[in-house]
This record gives sequence, C-alpha cells and structure tokens, in this order.
Amino acid sequence: MQMGTIRHMAIFTLKHTEGSAEIEHFLNDGEKILSSIPVVKNFEVLRQVSAKCNFDYGFSMEFQNQEAYDAYNAHPEHQRFVRERWETEVAGFQEIDFMHL
Amino acid sequence: MQMGTIRHMAIFTLKHTEGSAEIEHFLNDGEKILSSIPVVKNFEVLRQVSAKCNFDYGFSMEFQNQEAYDAYNAHPEHQRFVRERWETEVAGFQEIDFMHL
Repeated sequence: MQMGTIRHMAIFTLKHTEGSAEIEHFLNDGEKILSSIPVVKNFEVLRQVSAKCNFDYGFSMEFQNQEAYDAYNAHPEHQRFVRERWETEVAGFQEIDFMHL
Repeated sequence: MQMGTIRHMAIFTLKHTEGSAEIEHFLNDGEKILSSIPVVKNFEVLRQVSAKCNFDYGFSMEFQNQEAYDAYNAHPEHQRFVRERWETEVAGFQEIDFMHL
C-alpha cells in the first residue's frame, strides 16, 4: 500500500443462514457492483475466521487518496448498493480505515 | 493474498498520550520484533482513521497457512512481546483474521 492510500474495510454479518445461496449472492453482487466503481482498487471478499471477532465476512478495498474515497461514497452505484442490499441484508458491521504511518 | 493465506490483524489503542514518544516506540518495536519472526509475511503498521471505529492503530501480517500462524503464536519473541509490551501498553484491541472465500 503506497503512502496516502486509504484501505477501507467493512467487516459484517448477514441476516441469511450460514451456507445459503443468499449469502453467496450478496458477496458476489457486492464484489461485482463495488469493484466496478472506477476509484475502487484491490477489492477483496474475505471470510473472517477468528473466534475472537463476532463478524463473518469482510470487504476490503483501497483508494488512492481522500478524493477517491469521497467519490466512492458519492457514487450512485455505491449508494444504491447500500440502500437496496446493505441496509436490508446486513445484521451488523464495523468499518475500519487504515493508512500507513 | 493467495488461497489458504491467513491475514491476521490486531486493531488497538494505546495507553500512551497521542503523539508521545512511547507510541512511536511501541509501534517501532512491534514492527521490528514481530516482523522478524520468520513465518510473518507482509507486516504492516497502520493508523486507523475512520471516525466510526474506536481503535487508533493496526498491525497486519500474513501467514502462509494455519501451521505458520500456530508457529507465530508459539514463538518466544511473540510471547515475550505480548507479555512485556502488549499486556502493559495496550488499552483495548480487536483481533480480525481474514481468508479469501
């Protein structure tokens, strides 16, 4: 990760039953929709496997700078995903943003 | 991150005053000591910058597989760092372990 880059992560649990097709759909759609936003770099879909953390999944992505992050937050496809999918299918989440010191 | 790799992260706050030399020492020593353990790959020292997350710093590292992760946990330098520094200087933390789906 280069200096100035922001690594944005959301760790989350879904309302769907473990192993269900709905989970696969959510993760696949999230990757497809969010990674297609041009400012989004290095998008990753992750499983959270520590027993000491209460969340099951993670999305991780990088923005070149704060302007790119702002463009992502304002992007219609991101806002639509949040409204139509995140707010209806996510049971709980934590956001984390990292920069190199 | 390759399939099978585990990305281990700890996000944390320190007991020291923001901007103090003690914080710099903790982060520098953590990087030096932990990244020198042979199974630790891609060690990163990070600042957590989201206002929606209560932790200030992060260590991130990758292990090739569970055996490497177990070797890290059992390594004397890791255990010494936890005992002498982590348990005395860290005010709160959250562990997160990611694998690719």
